[in-house]
Amino acid sequence: MYNQKSYELGSKRSVIREIFEYAKTRAAEVGAENVFDFSIGNPSVPAPQEVQQALVKELTETPSVALHGYTSAQGDANVRKTISNNLKTRFNADIPADFLYMTCGAAASLTITLKALYEEGDEVIVFAPFFTEYRVFVEGTGAKLVVVGADEKTLLPDFNALEKALTPRVKAVIINSPNNPSGVVYREETVVRLCELLKKKSAEYGRAIYLISDEPYRELVYDKTVRVPFITNYYENAIVCYSYSKSLSLPGERIGYIAVSPKAAQAREVYLSVCGAGRTLGYVCAPALFQRVVAACDGLTADLSIYKKNRELLYNGLTECGFTCVYPDGAFYLFMKTPVADAYEFCEKAKAHDLLLVPSDDFGVKGFVRIAYCVQTETIERALPKFSLLAKEYGLK
Amino acid sequence: MYNQKSYELGSKRSVIREIFEYAKTRAAEVGAENVFDFSIGNPSVPAPQEVQQALVKELTETPSVALHGYTSAQGDANVRKTISNNLKTRFNADIPADFLYMTCGAAASLTITLKALYEEGDEVIVFAPFFTEYRVFVEGTGAKLVVVGADEKTLLPDFNALEKALTPRVKAVIINSPNNPSGVVYREETVVRLCELLKKKSAEYGRAIYLISDEPYRELVYDKTVRVPFITNYYENAIVCYSYSKSLSLPGERIGYIAVSPKAAQAREVYLSVCGAGRTLGYVCAPALFQRVVAACDGLTADLSIYKKNRELLYNGLTECGFTCVYPDGAFYLFMKTPVADAYEFCEKAKAHDLLLVPSDDFGVKGFVRIAYCVQTETIERALPKFSLLAKEYGLK
Repeated sequence: MYNQKSYELGSKRSVIREIFEYAKTRAAEVGAENVFDFSIGNPSVPAPQEVQQALVKELTETPSVALHGYTSAQGDANVRKTISNNLKTRFNADIPADFLYMTCGAAASLTITLKALYEEGDEVIVFAPFFTEYRVFVEGTGAKLVVVGADEKTLLPDFNALEKALTPRVKAVIINSPNNPSGVVYREETVVRLCELLKKKSAEYGRAIYLISDEPYRELVYDKTVRVPFITNYYENAIVCYSYSKSLSLPGERIGYIAVSPKAAQAREVYLSVCGAGRTLGYVCAPALFQRVVAACDGLTADLSIYKKNRELLYNGLTECGFTCVYPDGAFYLFMKTPVADAYEFCEKAKAHDLLLVPSDDFGVKGFVRIAYCVQTETIERALPKFSLLAKEYGLK
Repeated sequence: MYNQKSYELGSKRSVIREIFEYAKTRAAEVGAENVFDFSIGNPSVPAPQEVQQALVKELTETPSVALHGYTSAQGDANVRKTISNNLKTRFNADIPADFLYMTCGAAASLTITLKALYEEGDEVIVFAPFFTEYRVFVEGTGAKLVVVGADEKTLLPDFNALEKALTPRVKAVIINSPNNPSGVVYREETVVRLCELLKKKSAEYGRAIYLISDEPYRELVYDKTVRVPFITNYYENAIVCYSYSKSLSLPGERIGYIAVSPKAAQAREVYLSVCGAGRTLGYVCAPALFQRVVAACDGLTADLSIYKKNRELLYNGLTECGFTCVYPDGAFYLFMKTPVADAYEFCEKAKAHDLLLVPSDDFGVKGFVRIAYCVQTETIERALPKFSLLAKEYGLK
């Protein structure tokens, strides 16, 4: 009567969604201010004022039919030209406008890219800890998801495990730096090492292995010393999947892009395949008004100083309590080791203090929790005494 | 290296897109005012002023984080409640808010619905003439597209052919009224006859046959006597795929919904399968700002009197030239019989007069052209003498 897999994906709530619903129920009981919901990656900082200005300008100056009409399927030509120029200026990256494809956000960027590349028997590698929806997107195309583990201390890829996993069936490797759920950023040395290995294996198999860089958190880094390498400058068979959801605090507006490296193997064919995949999935064009808005605001960010302040406060507070945390260079997530092996058990104990955390199991690793610090700073300040009580229950400090 | 099917769909331009590109080239040669492009279904009438008012109101009154944040995957609860109430008021239809799923427009509504229903071996029936992308969407899920012909005079379904095509493998039937490309509206008697047949066959096979009603042109009818029946009032296993692209002249903004009849077989499971299918295809939520805007403007339309005037002018002008046209009750397309069997040949002759028309072959019928009259009225006025010359070449009148 209906598609069993779609039904399962629609009826089985994600752990994060379960917590989100619990938070609403609990808030009704004890008041929203007494529930410390660290589960959701929804930006807590308003869009930069330039977004509002660009919206008002377009609504005032551009006639309705032109403003709200279809753009070409790849996206408005001027929008793509602007972004192409900015990629050159910002990252010295050469991505011509006709290798850019505007999308309805990061999820669409990924599903379209994966469908564009998929051939029967393909495998796609992701690195734990990984964004849970990668499994849905990869398996949705028909490909097999292969999870490669991380060094438990740095949460960087386990290169020995990667080398073993890189069989001739691997079509693509997905990276996500700054990382959801860990906040870890791949520095240049990691990127270089990864690319060298992929080049070696591509040559060995006589077949391109595509590197898909999922970058919704690209701009969310908090120290001048931390640079996020632009992947097409390091590897030819690269495809960048970008979203403005976090950088411009526009997650509900669904706007991003795919950038295919023009130096990729059969780059033109891959780009056209992206266009065809978008068509098949029902993406006629990315939202027209927001295409213009993000072009006007490309490279800007919401006020990141708030996230930075939150990160310091949370990281310092938790380590003072005796918890072990991976220092997050970017994104707005902190990955904390649980003092017991079972992260679910720990989350239940935290819940008794109305601290709502996400166990790491669905991200592909055990024994951690994800704490999203895209919240009001005051929420963290008021939560820390509760974390302290929780730490004492486990005999920390 | 890449997905062959996606590549083909991305690299093979549609006939309409070919004409669109030709129109641009030709305009550069002879001036845009001398090219009569009737190929594209892009609304030529501005969005109603209420859309602009709602946009400004939301941007002024709703804080950025709430306005541009993620909504639930099904869509904002208040938005769905408003639409649900309106469906009751406007059509006496009972579609609870939790059977509505907000989408990125009609194409997304269809791809999500088809993926939600698909099981191996399924067939999906469409009626010629049909919107060309149906083939892409249906085959994209893995199902087989079965085309049922039309009565050549009325362009209504051939019910004998339909009865033969309704095998136990048929999962769904797609209807599209008012129709693209013909402008034909299924009156109540046609809908009743169709539903009776589907009920009979469902009972015979002991298996629900879903009726998918693709309704981007629902409100675009021009006579008080023409009513578009609301399908869930006639058939229980019904799913409405709606878009605001044409009614509110917002095609670039990608906003619409899926309404699952709560009386459908396993309605709850089908709805959850819709949610899962949306998730798999990468639709996180429909654009947040425009969800609120369409809720505020649901049931309104752009100024339809312009399309009505265009229809009269074009229909009367063409029949006066001696052409045979199907009178279009709705949408903004007119289907005209070609005076020769080969519609491509006729379109080439028309092109010599800079009249750009779409041959009907890709819509699944031969010997017609589609003329989109969502253009400036003056364009039609100035084109008619050219149609007259064309008619004379074929010895009409």
